Amino acid sequence: MMNDDLGTWRRTHYTNMITPNLDGAKVTLFGWVQEIRDLGNLIFVNLRDKEGVIQITVTTKNTDAEVFEKIRKLAREFVIGVNGLVKKRDEAPRGVEILPQEIKILALANHPLPLDPTGRVPAEIDVRLDARILDLRCPESQAIFKIRHEIVSTTRRVLSETGHLEIHTPRIIAAAAEGGASLFPVEYFEETAYLAQSPELYKEELISVFEKVYEIGGFFRAEESHTRRHLNEFISVDVEEAFVNVNDVMRLQEELIFHILKDIKNKCSLQLDTLGVKIPTIELPLKRYTYSQVIDQLKNNDFKIEWGEDLSTPACRVLGDIHHKEFYFIDEWPTKTRPFYIKPRSDKNELCEAFDFMYEWIEITSGGSRVDDPNQLINRLREQGLNPENFDFHLKTYYYGMPPHAGWGMGLDRLVMAILDRDNIRDVVLFPRDRVRLKP
Amino acid sequence: MMNDDLGTWRRTHYTNMITPNLDGAKVTLFGWVQEIRDLGNLIFVNLRDKEGVIQITVTTKNTDAEVFEKIRKLAREFVIGVNGLVKKRDEAPRGVEILPQEIKILALANHPLPLDPTGRVPAEIDVRLDARILDLRCPESQAIFKIRHEIVSTTRRVLSETGHLEIHTPRIIAAAAEGGASLFPVEYFEETAYLAQSPELYKEELISVFEKVYEIGGFFRAEESHTRRHLNEFISVDVEEAFVNVNDVMRLQEELIFHILKDIKNKCSLQLDTLGVKIPTIELPLKRYTYSQVIDQLKNNDFKIEWGEDLSTPACRVLGDIHHKEFYFIDEWPTKTRPFYIKPRSDKNELCEAFDFMYEWIEITSGGSRVDDPNQLINRLREQGLNPENFDFHLKTYYYGMPPHAGWGMGLDRLVMAILDRDNIRDVVLFPRDRVRLKP
Repeated sequence: MMNDDLGTWRRTHYTNMITPNLDGAKVTLFGWVQEIRDLGNLIFVNLRDKEGVIQITVTTKNTDAEVFEKIRKLAREFVIGVNGLVKKRDEAPRGVEILPQEIKILALANHPLPLDPTGRVPAEIDVRLDARILDLRCPESQAIFKIRHEIVSTTRRVLSETGHLEIHTPRIIAAAAEGGASLFPVEYFEETAYLAQSPELYKEELISVFEKVYEIGGFFRAEESHTRRHLNEFISVDVEEAFVNVNDVMRLQEELIFHILKDIKNKCSLQLDTLGVKIPTIELPLKRYTYSQVIDQLKNNDFKIEWGEDLSTPACRVLGDIHHKEFYFIDEWPTKTRPFYIKPRSDKNELCEAFDFMYEWIEITSGGSRVDDPNQLINRLREQGLNPENFDFHLKTYYYGMPPHAGWGMGLDRLVMAILDRDNIRDVVLFPRDRVRLKP
Repeated sequence: MMNDDLGTWRRTHYTNMITPNLDGAKVTLFGWVQEIRDLGNLIFVNLRDKEGVIQITVTTKNTDAEVFEKIRKLAREFVIGVNGLVKKRDEAPRGVEILPQEIKILALANHPLPLDPTGRVPAEIDVRLDARILDLRCPESQAIFKIRHEIVSTTRRVLSETGHLEIHTPRIIAAAAEGGASLFPVEYFEETAYLAQSPELYKEELISVFEKVYEIGGFFRAEESHTRRHLNEFISVDVEEAFVNVNDVMRLQEELIFHILKDIKNKCSLQLDTLGVKIPTIELPLKRYTYSQVIDQLKNNDFKIEWGEDLSTPACRVLGDIHHKEFYFIDEWPTKTRPFYIKPRSDKNELCEAFDFMYEWIEITSGGSRVDDPNQLINRLREQGLNPENFDFHLKTYYYGMPPHAGWGMGLDRLVMAILDRDNIRDVVLFPRDRVRLKP
């Protein structure tokens, strides 16, 4: 069977625009065959496009014989175009149906399909990811990626309105930004280069030019860990700002989350319903717990931990139980647990001006005031066993007039996962990359 | 000399907000020392922030002795905070000046600086890139990156308003998308992976889910060529759409360029003045020349070229002279000159439904209708010497219901370069990566 050409046909409506008010209108629709019920002289086809589903009703009586035969040949996930009339009919799913006058079969689908794209037959995550394109057609995936789109839009709107310049920093870097661990090597002509883990050093340098910057883009960590919340390629929202400190950028973070939750509540109620997610109501300022308070919370819950230790995944799990449905900050971290570019407190060197932004057990954002004095930066590098010579290009910029500054990096995938209450970060990423997965 | 702490000081105004109307107001400003004129009992300091420059006037008479001594210590590019009074004064550069009451020296700068950050002393591109952070502080660079920000914003707004979903496709890929050439290998745990050259195959697959998608992000080409318009890491604007053909996506391209030019004319007049750029007025539809017409144009200009050849750089240079200050399309390309995923014309197989979008001699965008039939795709792969087995994951999706579709990829850096009439693409990229440059 040869496919039909698109020719001059162009869509006039999406399925969700077809309402009983359009009774009698002639429309052109495109989409995928979601379902077919063939009752002999009567065939119902559910046509799905990116906005929804509409019923096409075909009878031998009111449909041209050629069109009828063509519709009889359809199978699920075939791609079709329909020219037809809108008909108000109370018995139809949405009180309306399409009576087709012409039909084009634009593409076929081979059966059996490796996955049920309606999502009604549950499948393991690896089966789903192997046939990701079918998996993404299920209503839950469609909802997730529409909400993700809105989250990114709101993020950019807020950061743009607060005067942050969008930047594009390089992904191929000559040396290790945050220490040599966890980097993917790249063969860059005759040299070995690396994939950037974050735009940290570049964005810090750039606030000495543009004062307020942000970047949303992919970064890479060669971590061996294979968990439900780690990916080796991830999207990061990075913000950096001159003439402010940790408290200012924590306020920006909470304002951002406030707007994100508000916008998706307003714009994505259908999608939230599909996912069965209720967005928590938050009030600003969000709760701030010091690291020491959090250690006490853990100890009070019989979790064994000493002051000075970083928070392990089991520790975070306990915190998740304590802070159920809560967005919150942890600040005043021990200096030793944080990277070299985080500023120690001037009154108490063992603590630093860092924060984590959390939802339940998930760390979404890390940030803080940055070291802005070159000598302190050199000392901090040495303390962490790093060689300042490897940071020559970065250190140079500290002698050109480097203002006090602060910023953060937010894991976009983590945020979407948290807000939408997904168990696995792979649910919210189109084509995840992990320890064992490079395809599709 | 110890730097001062930011403490509780926070900016109340940017320099461009200081007008004679504010006479008598108390303000807090932050920025860099652009220039100092020390006349003994009178010192003028030009303070620069991201929005402009303001004069600070200090006299022994009206300034506290300690503040006066501190100001005497300043040098260019020192970072300072000023608490002071706005004073209307007709003789001052903008009819207004700041009388400082308190001053903080927040960071020093070592002299001599490797580059003059006012941009008044011209420097070679390599000197500029080696001290990029200083180079970016000159008015031209500031203007370029503000305009670039607006170009990206408008692009997202237009694509979002036309119903395109923002996607994030992987940068680490298992196999070569558009053929094996020009890929950077990545050591991905035990495997060799590659850096993506484009989101081409992913975005094509994704229109069979979301119908209209776009992505703005960095991609990588391991090309040896070291020219003024090539970079090995570049930002691409990628669009893909179901149920449309080459003509539809050419219309989207010209509407986008129309809105971009309109927006930067409206929002960036100051920056355009700084660059001495006059934005050309365009009328839609833009001119479309067929490949054959362009070959004739070249021949008529005594340029030696045969039908079927791709357009070389010298050929494009001649086209640039013919199409001075013109945005235009070249379509109806020979099938052999285009990648395997471009659809040949059904009536004339040797031609294909491809276009290039040009400004003068610069190719900004390439696109076209895509092959949507799996058998044709397999044939096209074989014709170009590619092994269909290496495209197994991609080909699979063609059996799940793949609609007719079309799209394009626009080089963002090229576009900014073209609109702002820059000779070298490195001018419009923060930290360019090329054959010889991996730093900073």
